[in-house]
Amino acid sequence: MAEKGSGSAPTGASGDSLGGIRFTDHFPSSRKVHIPGKLHPFLRVPMREIELSPTRSRTPGVPDEHNPPVVVYDTSGPYTDPDYGVDVKKGLPKLRREWILERGDVETASSGALRAKPGRRVTQMHYARKGVITPEMEFISIRENQMREEMLERMAQAGVPMRRQHPGHDWGASIPPVITPEFVRDEVARGRAIIPSNVNHPELEPMIIGRNFLVKINSNIGNSATTSSIEEEVEKMMWSVLWGADTVMDLSTGKNIHETREWILRNSPVPIGTVPIYQALEKVGGKAEDLSWEIFRDTLIEQAEQGVDYFTIHAGVLLRYIPLTANRATGIVSRGGSILAKWCLAHHQESFLYTHWRDICEICATYDIAFSIGDGLRPGSIADANDEAQFAELKTQGELTRIAWEHDVQVMNEGPGHIPMHLIRENMTKQLEWCGEAPFYTLGPLTTDIAPGYDHLTSAIGAAMIGWYGTAMLCYVTPKEHLGLPNKEDVKAGVIAYKIAAHAADLAKGHPGAQLRDDALSKARFEFRWEDQFNLSLDPTTARSYHDATLPAEAAKLAHFCSMCGPHFCSMKITQDVRDYAAKRHTTEAEALVEGMTEMSEKFKEAGGELYGKV
Amino acid sequence: MAEKGSGSAPTGASGDSLGGIRFTDHFPSSRKVHIPGKLHPFLRVPMREIELSPTRSRTPGVPDEHNPPVVVYDTSGPYTDPDYGVDVKKGLPKLRREWILERGDVETASSGALRAKPGRRVTQMHYARKGVITPEMEFISIRENQMREEMLERMAQAGVPMRRQHPGHDWGASIPPVITPEFVRDEVARGRAIIPSNVNHPELEPMIIGRNFLVKINSNIGNSATTSSIEEEVEKMMWSVLWGADTVMDLSTGKNIHETREWILRNSPVPIGTVPIYQALEKVGGKAEDLSWEIFRDTLIEQAEQGVDYFTIHAGVLLRYIPLTANRATGIVSRGGSILAKWCLAHHQESFLYTHWRDICEICATYDIAFSIGDGLRPGSIADANDEAQFAELKTQGELTRIAWEHDVQVMNEGPGHIPMHLIRENMTKQLEWCGEAPFYTLGPLTTDIAPGYDHLTSAIGAAMIGWYGTAMLCYVTPKEHLGLPNKEDVKAGVIAYKIAAHAADLAKGHPGAQLRDDALSKARFEFRWEDQFNLSLDPTTARSYHDATLPAEAAKLAHFCSMCGPHFCSMKITQDVRDYAAKRHTTEAEALVEGMTEMSEKFKEAGGELYGKV
Repeated sequence: MAEKGSGSAPTGASGDSLGGIRFTDHFPSSRKVHIPGKLHPFLRVPMREIELSPTRSRTPGVPDEHNPPVVVYDTSGPYTDPDYGVDVKKGLPKLRREWILERGDVETASSGALRAKPGRRVTQMHYARKGVITPEMEFISIRENQMREEMLERMAQAGVPMRRQHPGHDWGASIPPVITPEFVRDEVARGRAIIPSNVNHPELEPMIIGRNFLVKINSNIGNSATTSSIEEEVEKMMWSVLWGADTVMDLSTGKNIHETREWILRNSPVPIGTVPIYQALEKVGGKAEDLSWEIFRDTLIEQAEQGVDYFTIHAGVLLRYIPLTANRATGIVSRGGSILAKWCLAHHQESFLYTHWRDICEICATYDIAFSIGDGLRPGSIADANDEAQFAELKTQGELTRIAWEHDVQVMNEGPGHIPMHLIRENMTKQLEWCGEAPFYTLGPLTTDIAPGYDHLTSAIGAAMIGWYGTAMLCYVTPKEHLGLPNKEDVKAGVIAYKIAAHAADLAKGHPGAQLRDDALSKARFEFRWEDQFNLSLDPTTARSYHDATLPAEAAKLAHFCSMCGPHFCSMKITQDVRDYAAKRHTTEAEALVEGMTEMSEKFKEAGGELYGKV
Repeated sequence: MAEKGSGSAPTGASGDSLGGIRFTDHFPSSRKVHIPGKLHPFLRVPMREIELSPTRSRTPGVPDEHNPPVVVYDTSGPYTDPDYGVDVKKGLPKLRREWILERGDVETASSGALRAKPGRRVTQMHYARKGVITPEMEFISIRENQMREEMLERMAQAGVPMRRQHPGHDWGASIPPVITPEFVRDEVARGRAIIPSNVNHPELEPMIIGRNFLVKINSNIGNSATTSSIEEEVEKMMWSVLWGADTVMDLSTGKNIHETREWILRNSPVPIGTVPIYQALEKVGGKAEDLSWEIFRDTLIEQAEQGVDYFTIHAGVLLRYIPLTANRATGIVSRGGSILAKWCLAHHQESFLYTHWRDICEICATYDIAFSIGDGLRPGSIADANDEAQFAELKTQGELTRIAWEHDVQVMNEGPGHIPMHLIRENMTKQLEWCGEAPFYTLGPLTTDIAPGYDHLTSAIGAAMIGWYGTAMLCYVTPKEHLGLPNKEDVKAGVIAYKIAAHAADLAKGHPGAQLRDDALSKARFEFRWEDQFNLSLDPTTARSYHDATLPAEAAKLAHFCSMCGPHFCSMKITQDVRDYAAKRHTTEAEALVEGMTEMSEKFKEAGGELYGKV
């Protein structure tokens, strides 16, 4: 890796604290599998396969039933590949480097970084519009399908009862039953999905953000002037992807911004986003009014050469919108938005982000950096939700989106914020309408202001809902929101809360195959396969520890009841009895009427009166 | 208190572990206030008042701005009254005893318990239908209003800017701007709201459950055969009401059911619900098929005399519905439902709950016990959501509701369970239609099955949504759901998650005044009044500890920036600058055009270029 800045590896970076994110520690019975490509046979698309135990037969002579493994989406990168030796000093393998060079449209700058040859555009949108299915696109199509067809086939072979997935309500999305490489290409070409993938971040495993794909989540990390170190941030990135973050934003604002980002990029298997104005502001000693286009442009190129995959740019903060915030309850709460507002007021003209938007587009087209057009005027409180300032900026975001598309630059739009439940949908419908179906990327939204310390939860409610309505990526909120910087445990809490929100949204949209994991877990639960229930969950070790807190013995995990109810009250056990009984006697309503109630009753009593154990 | 069973006080019950739930420990700057009645001047309706600090003036000569206290709903009972000495052996003061005796319609049974005189009905619904506004009803009207008008008046006097509350979307509810005693009476008379209030539980502070009132939450406690003790359960009850539970269900199934319940009732300031079939089952040694009407009836009367305020009764589990569950992913997951199903199959006839429904109604009318008609066939997995079995039972719940109303018995209906987001609303609309607008009382619903260990969160999403749609009370789910019995910390986590869901629902419905607390907290946040932000939150100590984890110094709580961004990036600070600037210069769009951009820009630079500090 290009060692810049102070240049030395983070303490403990060679494998101890920073190497310990193996599946084996956190996801027992999981293993890494890789699926090859067809158009591009060299592809090895990673997934996590969860091995299950058989369903014990309760009838002598009848064999146990096989439960085929469940395959889940895997964001954890090579770290969880047992064949891979973690070395953060070396960085991750440069998976995409050959794919990029193969396209023959990049050159090497004097800095060593790649960039488009003069007059060329190297964005996935550019290729998509030319009709080219890149390796990235095929990788994504395989990844999004999550081996669903294979799983269904294996289940059919094993005789596992198929549960009908609820059809879902997709609010006008266009989700196909199977994601083909061509569908990926088409969605990227029309701007409905993006593949953040800077040519200088070859380490990333391609992923897609769009309304017709699985809902994604982002985790924010980054140090500030007052706290945190480089190794902590790299560890938070690793921890984020282990638990399921699809992208990570480095929001560092303190010292060593460049070096922190370098370590994160070289070790990140997921796209990295930044807010370049933060670093630009550091360069001018924190004085917003001293910012200039030149300083900002240089910052963009510096970060582009490092490999940042998407830039949050608050170009929609226009001068005339700023007075609209003066009577708000909480004014401007976006850091980027407030920096821009300060600059605009000081110079009393539109910001260089807005006036140089086409120049910025050209830079992004040169490296394939996606835009995440910032919502600098997002509401910071329930009181300010859906106000004039917010929606004025959203309209401008749409204008900027269309310009970026002229330059073949991929775009998503950032959204709020703090919104009561009944006002959430208006955000989605306006964004779809005004921004031409470009992916929406929202921060929560938080559905109430009254629970600092629990804002992962106040916002998971809003995130699940807006994800259902069509938001493509949900930016997580941790329990520390509004109070302090998240530590490793907060990052995990935020990621898990948002995995829940995203999955709840996939289920509600009726995303094909989304219900398979729920069905497998519920089957395990119903059959008292405790270990399978733990292993299929988002956080197996926590689930296991909660179980063990009440009934710690190993035997309890094999018991056909659990600690909540005790043996007499176990509804699962009784249901199993009912089912066995129904199956054995063919007790249907019609037959029951024929056989007569009394007869049935007496037969049952004769048989011992206790359903369980009769079989 | 009536000491029954083994008779001795729980260990440590005299004030140590069980006495320590004062406001001062958990809600700094809060104090108990009591509002008198008008129709019934002896009423003292408890509320919690949160004292705020002034907004510091940033302009010399201009005084600090007073922030009037915020009043919030208070479920914590006398425990948090500094004038009250906690003694669990004595139990709480019998607040309602005189009100009940005053009505002249009860007599004392040989057991010492109160019951209706022969031929009388003593339910709040009975009084309501006769046009009587009981002390309970006036108490509730005062409680529901939360001193909103007084708060608004104080704010106006102090010159605090008023935030417009979002109008809300109430899905056809009929929420008045002010809750009058007459409105309470009318809602109870027509069955749209209930006041659970057994004449033998005079300790409770009256509360109401109905779609046109604040959304309520229930906490479940209770030991099982394998774990937990009486004092633990009493402590969980106290802990529940401290954090905001509006009712508590005692779901004990192990030894000492009667005695545990006695201790809980005598010390509970909120209504207590039970599932009487649990105790009946213990009486027949756990053999469901040995249950009989006589045993069940005796159990009802035993619990009625102790003071249980509402009974969950699974009378809607009909014989013909049971086969509908045989092909489900998770069969019958309700404990009560599965006991009934087993009984029905064994006897092959309808359960005594269904056949003796009118007898049960008469018992409930004799003590004023509300029904919570159980949903014994609720779905236990996403796969089983909204299926035939579930909705068949819901229709029968409606039939039972109308019969209960003939007996002047108050009714709510229990609802699911596990439901993906897009199927939640169907539950609410069918319940409103089929059950005549009787209050709905749902368990979550959980919006995905894949996160055991986090089901307070998977379910808070569904709870917030169904609360918005019209559910009157949300039964909490703790992180231990599916895994083990909740301990004290789990109870708190569940209650807080559900307070968030209920409040988010109130905001979305546009409940009058619901936004006042959000506005006050956001104002405190915006003005860096850290202590006020903590104190206005649902859990001040957690909020404070998260803040202190990053910036522990006392000075940091007075700082005009925080640990997330550092001084240069503080958007709140910058916004304040923008606002000050706008206010000083009257910078509106129109004026700006007149003055000219360049002039403005130069003036600003002359003035020092740094907005902060100019004032």
